[in-house]
Amino acid sequence: MPNKTQLTLVKIGGNVIDDTEALNDFLIHFSEIKTTKILVHGGGKLATKLLEKMGIKPKMLDGRRITDSETLDVVTMVYAGLINKNIVAKLQSLGQNAVGLTGADFNLIKAHKRPVTTIDYGFAGDIDSVQTGIIAKLLNEGVVPVISPITHDGKAQLLNTNADTIAAETAKALAPIFDVTLIYCFEKEGVMNENKMIETLDYGQFKSLQQQNIISKGMIPKLDNAFAALKAGVKSVLIANAEGINSGNGTKLSK
Amino acid sequence: MPNKTQLTLVKIGGNVIDDTEALNDFLIHFSEIKTTKILVHGGGKLATKLLEKMGIKPKMLDGRRITDSETLDVVTMVYAGLINKNIVAKLQSLGQNAVGLTGADFNLIKAHKRPVTTIDYGFAGDIDSVQTGIIAKLLNEGVVPVISPITHDGKAQLLNTNADTIAAETAKALAPIFDVTLIYCFEKEGVMNENKMIETLDYGQFKSLQQQNIISKGMIPKLDNAFAALKAGVKSVLIANAEGINSGNGTKLSK
Repeated sequence: MPNKTQLTLVKIGGNVIDDTEALNDFLIHFSEIKTTKILVHGGGKLATKLLEKMGIKPKMLDGRRITDSETLDVVTMVYAGLINKNIVAKLQSLGQNAVGLTGADFNLIKAHKRPVTTIDYGFAGDIDSVQTGIIAKLLNEGVVPVISPITHDGKAQLLNTNADTIAAETAKALAPIFDVTLIYCFEKEGVMNENKMIETLDYGQFKSLQQQNIISKGMIPKLDNAFAALKAGVKSVLIANAEGINSGNGTKLSK
Repeated sequence: MPNKTQLTLVKIGGNVIDDTEALNDFLIHFSEIKTTKILVHGGGKLATKLLEKMGIKPKMLDGRRITDSETLDVVTMVYAGLINKNIVAKLQSLGQNAVGLTGADFNLIKAHKRPVTTIDYGFAGDIDSVQTGIIAKLLNEGVVPVISPITHDGKAQLLNTNADTIAAETAKALAPIFDVTLIYCFEKEGVMNENKMIETLDYGQFKSLQQQNIISKGMIPKLDNAFAALKAGVKSVLIANAEGINSGNGTKLSK
């Protein structure tokens, strides 16, 4: 069997997006990746700021945003419009043939509205499937997909969807076709144990550090997603900062 | 020489976009077009409404919007985010494999910031070129591009660009590869002479009706664009309402 093409899928979060200089720096590093690549971006604080400007109070519950209809319109505008298209324009200026997508485009990511239990999260989407046919063709043409955290349900409803999960599910879906390296890129060097970066982390160590409260709240779902991706055939996972995506410096996960 | 594939390129304007029912009705008609197709959409009043909600006063000069930096952010959000992605989700629900694009995506439409003369239009883009390579491939795969009126300059700057012009320039650029029918779709049956629709219109008749003030202000640049497209190789141009895009009823332009 011929070797599969290398694919690097990088996810950047809010802290990078909210800081223009950090974002530009990241995009330069991203454009220097030599393999086929995909960028998945989160939302950041711009949507909250816009809601405030519009006089709409962000609805939060246990630190999670409740996506009512007005909020869905705002995150669609900010994530799929403002953030996504500015990243695409910047990547084009760096010689990268970027295309900005949501899960609705090419029917890429189908999701369903999270069922109402004790909590109604509103228009939050849980992913059902990632269709990779056209994306794989575009990747082979040298195109760089830039995916924003908006999906759809196939019945004309857009849905606000967690970007970490989009990154992991897209990486998993492409794993049969490409040798996928998944990188969660954020402001720190990697997963930290006090002030020291953890060089390698397996699932047992992760769960042990979680029990000791050394690995903190926001990192737990990210790592759960990342280990699930590794288990599902993604070749390697790295947690790193912008420099790490070129140097390979960061926390490497192993099964 | 083998026959070229038929391509229908439809442009819809603000009056259709601002009316949810009219938009849904239009999208059903659009999805029934049997040929390869592209949709180009304008902006409508949503951007102005959002600017008002944010406490930003829309800047107008002689009926034209001045796109300052804040306004550019808002039109990027509304046109490329909210309007574009809701149209894509709706088309997907109608079985159309739509993808929402700006001129920055795939480096599709390159423009330059309109030079400052006596008036500074701000971040308004005048089109330099339309790259059709990847779009032609996607069209041949059955994909339906949905283009919003935002372009870029190749140096990371997004630009607000007239949708009528985008439609005409895209139709012209694709004319060597496809047999292009360009349809300007709006709320009226076609170009009107008092209460009667003009069935066919050639350039001489257009200029004569313009001198008699029978063809009104907003229609003049649209028809100038349309006749230029016809002259540049676009096979046919129709000015019609939503029903007209299926029935062919409307004003047919001839050279």
